[in-house]
Amino acid sequence: MKSEKYVIQGFKASAVASGLKKNSSLDLALILSEKEATAAGVFTTNKVKAAPVILSREHIKSGKARAIIANAGYANACTGETGLINARQTADFVAKELAIQPYEVLIASTGVIGRLPDMDLISEAIPDLAGSLSLDNIPSVARAIMTTDSFPKISRFDGQAGRQAYEILGIAKGAGMIMPNMATMLCFVLSDIRIDANDLKESLISSVETTFNRITVDGDTSTNDAVMVMANGTAGNKSLSEKEHINFTAGLKSVMGDLAGMIVRDGEGATKMVRIEILGAHSSSDAIISARTVANSSLVKTAFYGQDPNWGRIMAALGRAEVMMEEKYVDIWIDDVQIVSGGLAKGIEAERQATEKMAQREFGLTINLHQGAYKDQIITCDLTHDYVTINADYRT
Amino acid sequence: MKSEKYVIQGFKASAVASGLKKNSSLDLALILSEKEATAAGVFTTNKVKAAPVILSREHIKSGKARAIIANAGYANACTGETGLINARQTADFVAKELAIQPYEVLIASTGVIGRLPDMDLISEAIPDLAGSLSLDNIPSVARAIMTTDSFPKISRFDGQAGRQAYEILGIAKGAGMIMPNMATMLCFVLSDIRIDANDLKESLISSVETTFNRITVDGDTSTNDAVMVMANGTAGNKSLSEKEHINFTAGLKSVMGDLAGMIVRDGEGATKMVRIEILGAHSSSDAIISARTVANSSLVKTAFYGQDPNWGRIMAALGRAEVMMEEKYVDIWIDDVQIVSGGLAKGIEAERQATEKMAQREFGLTINLHQGAYKDQIITCDLTHDYVTINADYRT
Repeated sequence: MKSEKYVIQGFKASAVASGLKKNSSLDLALILSEKEATAAGVFTTNKVKAAPVILSREHIKSGKARAIIANAGYANACTGETGLINARQTADFVAKELAIQPYEVLIASTGVIGRLPDMDLISEAIPDLAGSLSLDNIPSVARAIMTTDSFPKISRFDGQAGRQAYEILGIAKGAGMIMPNMATMLCFVLSDIRIDANDLKESLISSVETTFNRITVDGDTSTNDAVMVMANGTAGNKSLSEKEHINFTAGLKSVMGDLAGMIVRDGEGATKMVRIEILGAHSSSDAIISARTVANSSLVKTAFYGQDPNWGRIMAALGRAEVMMEEKYVDIWIDDVQIVSGGLAKGIEAERQATEKMAQREFGLTINLHQGAYKDQIITCDLTHDYVTINADYRT
Repeated sequence: MKSEKYVIQGFKASAVASGLKKNSSLDLALILSEKEATAAGVFTTNKVKAAPVILSREHIKSGKARAIIANAGYANACTGETGLINARQTADFVAKELAIQPYEVLIASTGVIGRLPDMDLISEAIPDLAGSLSLDNIPSVARAIMTTDSFPKISRFDGQAGRQAYEILGIAKGAGMIMPNMATMLCFVLSDIRIDANDLKESLISSVETTFNRITVDGDTSTNDAVMVMANGTAGNKSLSEKEHINFTAGLKSVMGDLAGMIVRDGEGATKMVRIEILGAHSSSDAIISARTVANSSLVKTAFYGQDPNWGRIMAALGRAEVMMEEKYVDIWIDDVQIVSGGLAKGIEAERQATEKMAQREFGLTINLHQGAYKDQIITCDLTHDYVTINADYRT
């Protein structure tokens, strides 16, 4: 990762090892927009919401922001009133240090649920963070927010609005407790485009729907998920035309799709990334429910791991998905190899070819229900020994 | 297992190694009631139903049966018209050999989905099965229907109707693709009681609801689940009074509860059996949905395996369960150790004690939502390395 690639005008960043993570790696990060930025966010749909989620939702309502402070190690979820007070204090410390307003600070946390972050460590580290802000530190932020992630996740898109070039730079974290609406993930996207707050929100919502809301690692939805975008206008473009807005959304989607793919590829213990595509569904909800049920089946996921085109498990998952389906119309492919036709096996040779396809790091599973014209897709990973190891050992 | 304990008057059984399983262990079993028996069955709710399920549902409608033929190795599911023809042929062979009618034969299969059973092996083995029928062979049937099971599952209950003693003897199989409504399981229950077909059906349905429909191993529902009961009246009791019927249902529930517990204890790779109890739910559906969501969470199940009282994962599962819940009212216990009170941690000492409880082979997880007066429970197991090994390797 060449850090010069990840510079974006008007945004400075820093990261320190504050001691929140036990292994003295980076765990606290700050992003500052040099001028007021347009901002939008989407947050977890879990009824149990972490304190930083509650606070950031409140702050981002204005459509404006200046800074994001994020920590790993503690989720600050299920911490009650004290957790919320701590989150407010953190925003206050940052605001004071940067001479901005507390409501201009967004906050995000990831890590163990139910333990209060150590406010002494955080308050001590904030001056260091403020003092080390620089243009080329965004990759360090991506590293600081990692928990069980095995690599930092960054993506970039270059766009054009009128005569002005602009950039979109996104970073994300996430590997477990990942399931759409939203995943256990944090994603911060920065752009130097000048864009209206409502337009930004619209672009964000439509991008999340087809990217982060279409991945699953383990079917669990986190208490801390947050995607936050800041656009600071430094690119100096004029008001966006409708076409330019569409292009910006496409760019945002590209960055988020890229990051969402990285999260699945880095799914806890994952060895395979699988794109599950449902065709011929009776309704749009049938399409997504079918895709999710197959994607979250432990038996299907272990078969991915075993490189076994065990389509019986796929049929069984579809059959319990409470969607319109009839066994005799179902067709199934692994990449371009059809293994099921009209609900019946295509035979040993097809399965042999499918097994070869499944030996790849990434492959597609396509299911045609032949019940209508709707389609959808989910990107997921396999369920492996390492997933169990990571989650039986994590925290203790 | 002392086989003399598992004799029930009027029922003979046999099991052979027909070659359907590759390792030349028992794989085909027959049970015969010497006289016509009252019969009732409940079957998978999966839309994809195996051929034996389709046929047995058809045959059991009469409320009468004489025989059950069951095989392991092939599920005969997703095998289309040919699969159904094979199932009918199997019933015909059995009927001819035993000089009974084909519609008096019930049929059950378990094993790999999507492959046709070898009819030559089955037709060759049926005379051997018929020739070796004996009163003391029921434990062999329990062994013949095993797939990934690690032990055969039998339970017995002794009842009294008027002056007549009667018995209920149940056998079951199941270890994976187990989730209520129904599980990947077969269960055959025999009784020498004299009982009306409608009463038997009523007893069966109410027993299944609180036993097999309250367990989950991996959240997957099989295509082949079947619970079938035959009562042959050999005990010679008079018509059952309402109280005697209630007692019989209690006995049936006891046998089925026993077998359901064995299935979870034998859950693929399981090292822990956990009774998840929900209290204070807003509605009965909220109670069962909460219990199932927690029970099927991969993160919660790996925490069970790691003996980690990681209640944050439990809160996160409840929060995405789409039930009435508010973080600040939730109480959580491991056995009698409270680890969460009003949504907040009880502290390190409570967690230390909970960790000790979780070191046991079996423990309870109790959650009070404080939203109403409804409660329910699910029995489940942990998610382990061996689950992944078994399911990545099975079939291939």
